[in-house]
Amino acid sequence: MTPAPPYYAVIFTSQRTAGDQGYAKTAARMMELAARQPGYLGVEHAREEIGITISYWESLRAIAGWKAEAEHQWAQQRGREQWYSWYTVRICRVERAYEFRPDA
Amino acid sequence: MTPAPPYYAVIFTSQRTAGDQGYAKTAARMMELAARQPGYLGVEHAREEIGITISYWESLRAIAGWKAEAEHQWAQQRGREQWYSWYTVRICRVERAYEFRPDA
Repeated sequence: MTPAPPYYAVIFTSQRTAGDQGYAKTAARMMELAARQPGYLGVEHAREEIGITISYWESLRAIAGWKAEAEHQWAQQRGREQWYSWYTVRICRVERAYEFRPDA
Repeated sequence: MTPAPPYYAVIFTSQRTAGDQGYAKTAARMMELAARQPGYLGVEHAREEIGITISYWESLRAIAGWKAEAEHQWAQQRGREQWYSWYTVRICRVERAYEFRPDA
C-alpha cells in the first residue's frame, strides 16, 4: 500500500466524546478529501477504547498542506469543540518497513 | 505519556485470522513483557476491521532489543503460523508531537 521508505506518517490518537454530533459524516468526508490531497499515500484506522488513525504522506510539506486545507481546518475546530475529549498528533518519519503477506 | 520528541514508534498493522487459538493470552503477556523492556515508553492499541498497535521507544536499539527478546520471538513465529493473515511493521522516528487535552 505504501512505497519504500522514507515517507511520513501522522499518528492521530483520540478519545471521542459521547454521541455522534455530526462526527461520522465529517469523518467520512475528511477521508475522501485527504485522499485527494497532493502527497497522500494512504490511511489506516481502528477504534476501540481509543481511536487510532494513521495517515501516510510523501513529505512534511504534504502534511502541512493537509493540515491547512480549509474544510479540514473547520473540522479540526469542531473536533476540539465537540468530538474529542483529547487527542495527540505525532508526525513521524517512516524509516523502515516490512510485511508478512503470505497470500499476496 | 511520551516524552518530547525525538523518540521512536513501531506501527504494527494487522489482520487477525478467525478464532482465538491462544492469541489473547499471549497478546496480554507481550504487553506485560514489552513494558519491562529497556527503553519502552508506552503502547496504544485498537482493533476494528484491522488491528493497530503502536509501541513507543527511546531508541532504535531498544526496538531491536524487543524484537530479539526470546519469548517475543516465539510469539512472532506463532503470529505468522496462526494468528495473522497479514501484518505490516513500520519503524518510525517521531519528529514532532502535540496534544489537545483540555482537562489535563
